[in-house]
Amino acid sequence: MTRWTLYSAPGTCALASHIALREAGADFDLVTLDFGSGQQQSSDFLAINPKGRVPALVTDNGVLTETPALLAFIAQSFPQAQLAPLDDAFAFARMQEFNGYIASTVHVAHAHKRRGGRWADDAAAIEAMRAKVPQTMSACAAQIEARLVGPWVLGDRYSVADGYLFTVAEWFAGDGVDMKHFPHIVAHLDRVRARPAVKRAIAESGG
Amino acid sequence: MTRWTLYSAPGTCALASHIALREAGADFDLVTLDFGSGQQQSSDFLAINPKGRVPALVTDNGVLTETPALLAFIAQSFPQAQLAPLDDAFAFARMQEFNGYIASTVHVAHAHKRRGGRWADDAAAIEAMRAKVPQTMSACAAQIEARLVGPWVLGDRYSVADGYLFTVAEWFAGDGVDMKHFPHIVAHLDRVRARPAVKRAIAESGG
Repeated sequence: MTRWTLYSAPGTCALASHIALREAGADFDLVTLDFGSGQQQSSDFLAINPKGRVPALVTDNGVLTETPALLAFIAQSFPQAQLAPLDDAFAFARMQEFNGYIASTVHVAHAHKRRGGRWADDAAAIEAMRAKVPQTMSACAAQIEARLVGPWVLGDRYSVADGYLFTVAEWFAGDGVDMKHFPHIVAHLDRVRARPAVKRAIAESGG
Repeated sequence: MTRWTLYSAPGTCALASHIALREAGADFDLVTLDFGSGQQQSSDFLAINPKGRVPALVTDNGVLTETPALLAFIAQSFPQAQLAPLDDAFAFARMQEFNGYIASTVHVAHAHKRRGGRWADDAAAIEAMRAKVPQTMSACAAQIEARLVGPWVLGDRYSVADGYLFTVAEWFAGDGVDMKHFPHIVAHLDRVRARPAVKRAIAESGG
């Protein structure tokens, strides 16, 4: 297959796909966009991803977006890396359920801190959204903490869900979540951060 | 396997999983919650889904939530129904990408109409969110319209993504989207609505 390209940006959820690709041993090019200058809205990038977001993964067959879809695809494309329970539909669904919760609830809660303008135009409304982020993100952390028996999201085996949880759990403290209430998440962060593929992805991601 | 139970509520995204189960020919019980009386927050239901949301699917192995995870799981559990491209990882990822966009962007935009209290406490802020819904949902419709070559989301073959698109596209007009700009979506709605499994799910869903 031809070489893939991952479009990423520092501090975004694209890190989860980046980690998955490094865990998989994939050979790919990394393009880091500068969100500060609005590069994700440039005509060049909109031609790649009309949604103007990262991650976007350019593959042989076309461009793929949406983190949960990318994570499952990377796991399926590199089965020898054992990054998902590919032979057990229920366990795979559990992984997808977790990834879906991160994407649709946790990431969305986080986005109300800096991206409130997506959902309201009024400055006071955007400020009201920002003010509630510590509460909503703490509620998300509590949901995750209660189910994280470890060492990994799915129990005994590392999966792409762990790199995704790591990516968003790194946002918690900055979003006003008091991490002393979430020891399982803190231990999980340390466990994931220690992995060579994760260290490499973090160093490469520039953020 | 033991009989499954789908927890649903009228007017919610649970309809997408309901449609998928009917398309699959699954044998399951349907439990319809009354959101008006807050049944989704009852201790009985929180014991099933601590997130207090629908859909929740009780299976032999445990409870599954999050629509994209359920849709893929239903398709994988009933391969003879051919509700997803299970033998083509890239096509499967395309389906998951679409479902992920619906869950994380379209459904989230819609939720700012009636569920703004999830992301802000201030009444004026919640009203400001509601005011922007026609704009955000129209932008979502435009993204979908531009890619919907039809007859189905994935092209020639119906998949669980079609029941999901149908479910949220039914919200567009009520959310202030002017459907005359989106003829492909309107034609898709009609095409899905005509399917026997969809008619049955709509009639059973009570809404």
